[in-house]
Amino acid sequence: MSDLTETLLLTQALCARNSITPNDGGCQALVAERLRTVGFQVESLRFGEVDNLWAWHGTVGKTFAFLGHTDVVPVGDREAWSSDPFVPELRDGLLYARGAADMKGSVAAMVIALERYVTAHPEHSGIVGILLTSDEEGVAEDGIRRVAETFVQRGQRIDYCLVGEPSSDKQFGDRIRIGRRGSLHAHIKVRGVQGHVAYPEKALNPIHHAAPALAELAARRWDEGNPHFPATSFQISNIHSGTGATNIIPAELNLDANFRFGTASRAEDLMRETETILVRHNLDYRIRWVLSGAPFLTAHGDLLKATQAALVAETGAEALADTGGGTSDGRFIAPMGAEVVELGPINATIHKVNECVSVADLARLERVYLDILKRMLGPARR
Amino acid sequence: MSDLTETLLLTQALCARNSITPNDGGCQALVAERLRTVGFQVESLRFGEVDNLWAWHGTVGKTFAFLGHTDVVPVGDREAWSSDPFVPELRDGLLYARGAADMKGSVAAMVIALERYVTAHPEHSGIVGILLTSDEEGVAEDGIRRVAETFVQRGQRIDYCLVGEPSSDKQFGDRIRIGRRGSLHAHIKVRGVQGHVAYPEKALNPIHHAAPALAELAARRWDEGNPHFPATSFQISNIHSGTGATNIIPAELNLDANFRFGTASRAEDLMRETETILVRHNLDYRIRWVLSGAPFLTAHGDLLKATQAALVAETGAEALADTGGGTSDGRFIAPMGAEVVELGPINATIHKVNECVSVADLARLERVYLDILKRMLGPARR
Repeated sequence: MSDLTETLLLTQALCARNSITPNDGGCQALVAERLRTVGFQVESLRFGEVDNLWAWHGTVGKTFAFLGHTDVVPVGDREAWSSDPFVPELRDGLLYARGAADMKGSVAAMVIALERYVTAHPEHSGIVGILLTSDEEGVAEDGIRRVAETFVQRGQRIDYCLVGEPSSDKQFGDRIRIGRRGSLHAHIKVRGVQGHVAYPEKALNPIHHAAPALAELAARRWDEGNPHFPATSFQISNIHSGTGATNIIPAELNLDANFRFGTASRAEDLMRETETILVRHNLDYRIRWVLSGAPFLTAHGDLLKATQAALVAETGAEALADTGGGTSDGRFIAPMGAEVVELGPINATIHKVNECVSVADLARLERVYLDILKRMLGPARR
Repeated sequence: MSDLTETLLLTQALCARNSITPNDGGCQALVAERLRTVGFQVESLRFGEVDNLWAWHGTVGKTFAFLGHTDVVPVGDREAWSSDPFVPELRDGLLYARGAADMKGSVAAMVIALERYVTAHPEHSGIVGILLTSDEEGVAEDGIRRVAETFVQRGQRIDYCLVGEPSSDKQFGDRIRIGRRGSLHAHIKVRGVQGHVAYPEKALNPIHHAAPALAELAARRWDEGNPHFPATSFQISNIHSGTGATNIIPAELNLDANFRFGTASRAEDLMRETETILVRHNLDYRIRWVLSGAPFLTAHGDLLKATQAALVAETGAEALADTGGGTSDGRFIAPMGAEVVELGPINATIHKVNECVSVADLARLERVYLDILKRMLGPARR
């Protein structure tokens, strides 16, 4: 059985399990059983409705961890799929299934690479492992966030973390992520005084009162970015005010906003500057801040070097390293002091109907993952 | 049986009928039956779910019409009422019931005044009548608006219209309305381009795009008013945008706004100036305008003179004449070329729990209505 077939078979087995977030659908048990067979220790960490798995091999030294998730986003328009999203189907060198690219293919390649690595090098240095969650696509409260908290409480470190998120753009390995922007949510309530539109002098319209502040927030440049991150972006995602009646001045206005920010701004600065604007406009407001994740950046480091070297060996070129995209679970691992790099298949079809992954890319991914393991933990590939 | 008792008894009979808008609850049938008995002709005009009644006496000459409504607003917090809102109760000279002040007391006073007038003066000049609807408190689409359209189509005029809306402030007859502001609704949709908050460059946030325009609209002074009307008021009553998800830039923003305007601005100017602002901010918008009613004003005229003279005879003083408050069904009658004046009881408790009307004021109202009939159609009161 070729390596290609093994990675493909495991991808198919994982994709055949319906695991819409936050459900694992039995994927982690399958991974745990395989890795236990080749000598891994396994720990299940279930928080709330979320399954998390930590499987590791080795006892001392630095910890290298693959990071992935077994949950998938909902199928969307089921009728628009050419085949059942949970019955993986091979057509023209592509495997079609929900989660094929995001990111059961990566998980399968990690598992096969780990199996091959520890089988060939049972006495490797350090600790190698894989950390999986079933809540990366959802609220991500009880997933890697909780696992990382648990690790920190135990004094358990992760030094290098390779995330399998689908980073590739046009061709396999053309792009890796060396960081992600932070995400900061603001939930704002502006209070006014309800009244009848015929008697505005007896009311205070929170929509009118807030409008100049919103215009100022929307127009503001928060920073200029830096070589690794674009300028901070502020977006209001929801705004609601009004009873539905067209003759009532509403009592309050509610809005949600989100900052995506790099290392050019700190969350506390964005929070303070936002509130300064609200105060200057004399708004009677309450604000609830939720920091989904601080920005993280691996500008240089051993893992980044090993990843680029492995890509050069496989594809002939280094990848473009960027910090684009949304957030990833890397945001929970980076604050532990880990070097975090993200490498996975082409992301063109993720979260869409007819999600698919190239069978050839799965093989490449598995080879690159194995090569990175060797470069990080020995023996170095010649 | 004294006049006082007759007006009170009819008010009680009307208030005992649950007629939450747009229901009439049998009120108009009661009025129609009484007036038929004293020689009135009666026409029922039902449009949609709304009952309208036109009862008149006389055949040629100018038409004097009382205008009222039999519907009432909902009871609100039932538990906060001291007695059943549809079981009228007399306490300390006040009659408590939903609709007692707005405006079944006025309707009763009008009916008794008409009965007494045509009984005493069967050969009066002109035409006297009463026009009632069961949809003044609701959307008012199938009420007096439709009746007025019908009258205009028939070539049927109303020359003088006395509206029974509760105009009095502190004391009976201290205030009459000689006009009302117009009401103009705007329903605006601003289109953006939906996207993910992590990729704002691929989206166009309609909330951000609209914010400066909303700030400008909210800050604008549309006119300075004039001796009869306050400055025009613009109020946004509803604003909604967003899918609920905090990571999605929404595709569109919807808002409702309302102008209350006097004779210092024309509706078409307000519409044009609003759209000028939306266009200047480069918004991709659609707007739907609904003119609920143009402003009307009776700055002088025979009905106003007769009303003030009748109030001087009853209370010793003219009323303060203003154009305050919301809209009234007078807006549909004024465009027919009618002189419109509004006189009714004290409005302190209308639309509230424990709505009530003074029994003594009901008697005063009936005497004043009767006096106005005599002054307008003869014989003049000496």
